[in-house]
Amino acid sequence: MARPFTTATRPLLGGHAVPQPTAARDPSLKRNPAFARLTPADIAHFQSILPSASAVLYADGAAVTQDDLLPYNMDWMRKYRGQSSLVLRPSTTDQVSKILKYCHARGLAVVPQGGNTGLVGGSVPVFDEIVLNLANMNKIRSFDAVSGVITVDAGCILEVVDDHLRTFGHMMPLDLGAKGSCQIGGNLATNAGGLRVLRYGSLRGSVLGVEAVLPNGDVLDTLVPLRKDNTGLDLKQLMIGAEGTLGVITAASILAPVRPNATHVAVVAVPDYAGVQAAFLNARTMLGETLSAFEFWDSAACQLVDEHLSHVRHPLESQQPGAFNVLVETAGADAEHNMAKLDAYLEKLMDEGVAVDGAVAQDQAQALAIWAVREGIPEACSKAGAVFKYDVSVPVPDLYELVEATRTRLAELKVPGVLSVIGYGHVGDGNLHLNVAAEDYTKQVTNALEPFVYEWVASKRGSISAEHGLGLMKPKHLHYSKTKQAIDLMQQIKKVVDPKGIMNPYKYLPEPEH
Amino acid sequence: MARPFTTATRPLLGGHAVPQPTAARDPSLKRNPAFARLTPADIAHFQSILPSASAVLYADGAAVTQDDLLPYNMDWMRKYRGQSSLVLRPSTTDQVSKILKYCHARGLAVVPQGGNTGLVGGSVPVFDEIVLNLANMNKIRSFDAVSGVITVDAGCILEVVDDHLRTFGHMMPLDLGAKGSCQIGGNLATNAGGLRVLRYGSLRGSVLGVEAVLPNGDVLDTLVPLRKDNTGLDLKQLMIGAEGTLGVITAASILAPVRPNATHVAVVAVPDYAGVQAAFLNARTMLGETLSAFEFWDSAACQLVDEHLSHVRHPLESQQPGAFNVLVETAGADAEHNMAKLDAYLEKLMDEGVAVDGAVAQDQAQALAIWAVREGIPEACSKAGAVFKYDVSVPVPDLYELVEATRTRLAELKVPGVLSVIGYGHVGDGNLHLNVAAEDYTKQVTNALEPFVYEWVASKRGSISAEHGLGLMKPKHLHYSKTKQAIDLMQQIKKVVDPKGIMNPYKYLPEPEH
Repeated sequence: MARPFTTATRPLLGGHAVPQPTAARDPSLKRNPAFARLTPADIAHFQSILPSASAVLYADGAAVTQDDLLPYNMDWMRKYRGQSSLVLRPSTTDQVSKILKYCHARGLAVVPQGGNTGLVGGSVPVFDEIVLNLANMNKIRSFDAVSGVITVDAGCILEVVDDHLRTFGHMMPLDLGAKGSCQIGGNLATNAGGLRVLRYGSLRGSVLGVEAVLPNGDVLDTLVPLRKDNTGLDLKQLMIGAEGTLGVITAASILAPVRPNATHVAVVAVPDYAGVQAAFLNARTMLGETLSAFEFWDSAACQLVDEHLSHVRHPLESQQPGAFNVLVETAGADAEHNMAKLDAYLEKLMDEGVAVDGAVAQDQAQALAIWAVREGIPEACSKAGAVFKYDVSVPVPDLYELVEATRTRLAELKVPGVLSVIGYGHVGDGNLHLNVAAEDYTKQVTNALEPFVYEWVASKRGSISAEHGLGLMKPKHLHYSKTKQAIDLMQQIKKVVDPKGIMNPYKYLPEPEH
Repeated sequence: MARPFTTATRPLLGGHAVPQPTAARDPSLKRNPAFARLTPADIAHFQSILPSASAVLYADGAAVTQDDLLPYNMDWMRKYRGQSSLVLRPSTTDQVSKILKYCHARGLAVVPQGGNTGLVGGSVPVFDEIVLNLANMNKIRSFDAVSGVITVDAGCILEVVDDHLRTFGHMMPLDLGAKGSCQIGGNLATNAGGLRVLRYGSLRGSVLGVEAVLPNGDVLDTLVPLRKDNTGLDLKQLMIGAEGTLGVITAASILAPVRPNATHVAVVAVPDYAGVQAAFLNARTMLGETLSAFEFWDSAACQLVDEHLSHVRHPLESQQPGAFNVLVETAGADAEHNMAKLDAYLEKLMDEGVAVDGAVAQDQAQALAIWAVREGIPEACSKAGAVFKYDVSVPVPDLYELVEATRTRLAELKVPGVLSVIGYGHVGDGNLHLNVAAEDYTKQVTNALEPFVYEWVASKRGSISAEHGLGLMKPKHLHYSKTKQAIDLMQQIKKVVDPKGIMNPYKYLPEPEH
């Protein structure tokens, strides 16, 4: 058997050691005894489905060890660690179908895995679930320039697809920090948000069709490249955002917008959060349909980037404590016109005292340098230590209050090991990323933050997961954002589609009450 | 009991008489004997839930006759006619909940009804189903100018909501010909498309939350005004486009875009369908993010408008048989800039011989006059006679071929009573409306068109219903656009959510095979 390898180009982050297995740290997690345990006959059967030697990675302790499977068992934040001894790497939808049909019949649990860049432990096993890694399904199936529809395998890496589209003058409607590693299937399974939702909307609008394998092995083919189709329930919506609990997405048709001729980026320093909101309202009216991103971060985030990312330099000098930075991007068909608009916008903010400093990138390199700060924040935070990540939606006026309330709480409780509390995110989407960097993933920090953060969000009728999803981290907190009737209905649908519960168990939904 | 009245401002169309009941014309339709029949105790119970006299309209033959209920039993095309003797008009979600809870317990079938402007018979009864008319639920609940989110009752009329938003500088992301009568709840239940999908995407992206009453009376509240929310299955997507078969939508939160400062409209005459495509590709690259609509219609459609709509005058002189008209709309923040762009676009089309004629509207009145032609086509067609409407998605290059193939077929078969075959629609969405006007809804015309049209669409992997939905017209044809696995899964979900099948029966999905 060949040596296993990780396909992720994204490095594992965090200075802390390889963690204890998740299940060892949380005794409330119990392996579901209804699931079968792997036998030599199972391995032989999977080898017959996947003839390539590198497609079946079984930790028999000889050719392959448990350590070799660590990249598949552990998430990139080193927060979650499963104990699977089997990784399957199919190349075709038919192989996925055969695998699931067999697992369904045998009662073997399965974790679908894309680029493994998720933040809530959704893409790694908890116990001995089989890892179904999609990286070998990486073909771009077709692109139609008239309609702008691209059809790709689930294992295609987001940046690779975007680069392919670039040659045709199109682009992916989705962009996020992990673009160099994350896969389209994982993007869809988690309904990834990211940096372009403001302009291009959510994947629920831009994904036109999905091919998925249901838990019983049936192939659900809704892969039509049509912008409009009102023939029955939109089943692809069940697969988008279900985090692999209703089946495995194997391909998708996505509407790829025309890539704008001209993109401009400005960075603005504002003295307080009221300034962030004023800058946003001005951007929406003055920049109109050309506005393509509006991001913000606080001075604590600036400081982490300065300390931990030597290759990133902040473009503005003035980084007052308590101040904020705002990134404004426009994209459109007419470079000169759009640049003039952005200049006028910045001038107005300075004239009116909304901004205390600001700069418009004069070329692509400067634009990338500004983006590097924003995109570097999660990495800087991870380099600082173990990161407790919260990703919430709340009404824009209340957004930053959560960061301040969290700082106050941690100080009052004198929680040991806390290094930094930072806030950043997508203002236009009402989406805040609250990150707490600490020396380690300790119970003390967790207990200080949870359920405090969730209760605070619920009090604003917000979402406890704006874009990261639920994974292993949040099913027990789902009630903060969803009613009992809604959770009941989700559980009923899960039961219909996956009666044996083999798909990505222990995650996403709480166990039904009996 | 007060006299009933119709709330629809849209007139009933068609010169032909009130049709026979649908069930009398189609003996394959059988009333489901599992459904209960109304008793005096039921009427008394509904009167206790809805104390207002005009909220319970029961055709007892005395104060209210069956004729009085005709506006609720018949669709506006006069094609479908049910035989209900009871119309309920609740004003609150709680009343809807109590009604459905009772109907569920009693096994009484229910048809939810919005503006009753649908085209596939989805919003009127087939037999004696109770009509649940939402017109009295017409409150705008809230609008938040920072986020741009509006929350409205399901019975609000689309145009009323859009007018309300206008005062705040926002707009509905949805526009369609029936806007003066159609209701938000019906728009969502049918996932209405219309004229703005090209710019603002589908409702699946712009609807942020839905409040719905499930068939058992439970209220499903997902009415959060958040742009991003990844906490579990997106249940609102099950309600959008389910045509009232999974419950009754009672309210919605919708992301309302900023209303552009400047809108410009041009009309272009092109000699053939290749010219339509060339005009579209040029529009996408030259007009970029300002392009807000791209519509086309053929010369046969022009002729019907000229003949039947005396108040609509076509803006271009040259209406060659076989030629096409294209409507191009841009919308943006900068009037001068956008007007210059549209002028340059038109000049290029004329210079390159793509267009043979064209005009840019110089003011709002001229813009409305151009739109009046496009929006008048369905009405003109209805005035010509009985209309067989097909609404399909196919790849853009093949789009118009269906109209030509249909004309050829009807001519070859010498089908009597056919008046006109016209094609128009939303090029940017790959969405064609094929309308066949005939003297009456005859079996001969139907049999000449079906399954011919559906088979043709299936051969292109298109959708047999791009935006009109399935209703009573298309469930038996669903297999042309959806696989067996997909239809099975839809039926399973229906069974879970509505185990007694009381919601909008006989429609949407074919009966499960036993």
